Amino acid sequence: MAAAAMKVGERKKKVIIDSDPGIDDAMAILVALRSPELEVLGLTTTFGNVRTAVATRNALHLLETVGRTDIPVAEGSHVTLKKDTKMRIASSCHGSDGLGNQDLPPATLTKPVDQPAAAFLVEQANLYAGQVTVVSLGPLTNLAPALELDPSFPKKIGQVVVLGGAYSVNGNVNPAAESNMFGDPDAADKIFTCGADVLAVGINVTNQVILSDADREKLQQSDSKYTRYLCKPLAHYFDYHREIYFTEGVYLHDPTALLAAVNPSLMTLAEGAVRVQTAGITKGLTLFRSNDKRYVEMTAWTGMPTVMVAVAVDAPAVVELMMQRLMVDDY
Amino acid sequence: MAAAAMKVGERKKKVIIDSDPGIDDAMAILVALRSPELEVLGLTTTFGNVRTAVATRNALHLLETVGRTDIPVAEGSHVTLKKDTKMRIASSCHGSDGLGNQDLPPATLTKPVDQPAAAFLVEQANLYAGQVTVVSLGPLTNLAPALELDPSFPKKIGQVVVLGGAYSVNGNVNPAAESNMFGDPDAADKIFTCGADVLAVGINVTNQVILSDADREKLQQSDSKYTRYLCKPLAHYFDYHREIYFTEGVYLHDPTALLAAVNPSLMTLAEGAVRVQTAGITKGLTLFRSNDKRYVEMTAWTGMPTVMVAVAVDAPAVVELMMQRLMVDDY
Repeated sequence: MAAAAMKVGERKKKVIIDSDPGIDDAMAILVALRSPELEVLGLTTTFGNVRTAVATRNALHLLETVGRTDIPVAEGSHVTLKKDTKMRIASSCHGSDGLGNQDLPPATLTKPVDQPAAAFLVEQANLYAGQVTVVSLGPLTNLAPALELDPSFPKKIGQVVVLGGAYSVNGNVNPAAESNMFGDPDAADKIFTCGADVLAVGINVTNQVILSDADREKLQQSDSKYTRYLCKPLAHYFDYHREIYFTEGVYLHDPTALLAAVNPSLMTLAEGAVRVQTAGITKGLTLFRSNDKRYVEMTAWTGMPTVMVAVAVDAPAVVELMMQRLMVDDY
Repeated sequence: MAAAAMKVGERKKKVIIDSDPGIDDAMAILVALRSPELEVLGLTTTFGNVRTAVATRNALHLLETVGRTDIPVAEGSHVTLKKDTKMRIASSCHGSDGLGNQDLPPATLTKPVDQPAAAFLVEQANLYAGQVTVVSLGPLTNLAPALELDPSFPKKIGQVVVLGGAYSVNGNVNPAAESNMFGDPDAADKIFTCGADVLAVGINVTNQVILSDADREKLQQSDSKYTRYLCKPLAHYFDYHREIYFTEGVYLHDPTALLAAVNPSLMTLAEGAVRVQTAGITKGLTLFRSNDKRYVEMTAWTGMPTVMVAVAVDAPAVVELMMQRLMVDDY
């Protein structure tokens, strides 16, 4: 069993998952809860698949359903960094409730902590300096204000794993932009250039990681509390992919990024500076500068801190690991 | 001999070369003059490697040197479509005179025709409707006004071969932009979306087409009037590449685009809509939408005419063909 891979006494990686559940967000959170390599310090919420208030509701409901009300939820910003209130919400993909139109009741036992997400992130980064990994599965709206609350945040945070971008491929919102980057390009550009240890996982790799109908069948048969939770959302997610993308199966965007935090060797990484275009027809485009390119003139990438970008993925291994984690109740 | 490939009675392709000579522009023009498949109707001039006035001077000098004063030269715009007078001129790459700092005398026999480039393009497109190929080797500043002079220009022009763009790779001005697109992104976006039969050849392919030191040696030994003309400019061009790009050899950007007009089967093409970002840090970026991508929402690419984009090239065949054409004086 995969859980056995965690050696006794080995320190768990402390993670905060910043997300907008969202169907594949919910999968990623559940995988995190079932990963012995990780200690989930908290969830922070953002917008994207749903509005932030719905993301918070879903995060609380999910934790209560699987018996993890010990994990705090800090609600994030309801608007983009530039205070746009008109945001792109991907409700057709995830359902208007973010979980396949189930109309679930709210959590009864818990509510969000009093801190906003950005303050929670800064607090945890200071409490465990250099040890916290933020796994960002939505727009980077909560992380950018952390830089202003604490200018040393980029150094204090251990790592930021960003699900976002479309590196040298077409986006999924439009040909230029991937949805999380499109959702708040100003915030994204700040995070990519802040000097933190950033690992970006874009749709150039996550579009290769597909959960098939057969995989879904296996998940359902396992009947763990995790797969039971995911059954209805997945049905919606599969229908959407079949209708819109003509694919038999669904993209595992968020679980792939989460598993990059568990085991980065599942991916091949390249190093370079990334900038995000913030306006115009390519708003939200992520532009990676390969370190082996030379320019005579100063560019907007010159002198910028480098980040790591996933350029290839062992897709079968990611799917396998995700399924292992979800198909049993306890470890 | 390559010239023998032209069958007796076969109609030559009428071309107008819009360029900013420029060292590789000069190579491309000379290859065109030596290609039996082509009839050069005229040269039009633009800015980029040099200012437009210098490009005109060099075009006239080149034609006089090789005895082709029968070919008209129409001078193009001195400013971008949006009338920027502060333009990026690549004088370090091509020398301040565009031909390796030779300080050549002006042509003595000829001067430009009275028409500006855009009017000449429109006139020729009407004279030979559907038969004229424009080979654009600089910014697209002269072609965009042709659309306003004659709204039927996209239908009347046979084809536009565009040297420009960096498709799914880093640019050469900066990580986002290739130099011809950066030079006038507004004009470029107009041409890519005008509905003309456009074939784009970007640095994703031309950076693979390299003239080596050994090739250059062969050119020099051939001692044709064409290779004699190119000897000094090439020395400068090789020095620049060695110093800036650390390459042994030089990129054959312009000759590759010219040869795409001679024989498009030297390349593998993909079809899709291309838009050009006109502002911000990715100004000049060319974004190709693959036809197999689907989007739920309207995008800036939706409903746009498609163009053909070179995605692979038979680089040895391009180098070989270019050398064949330049190494003999007559055919």
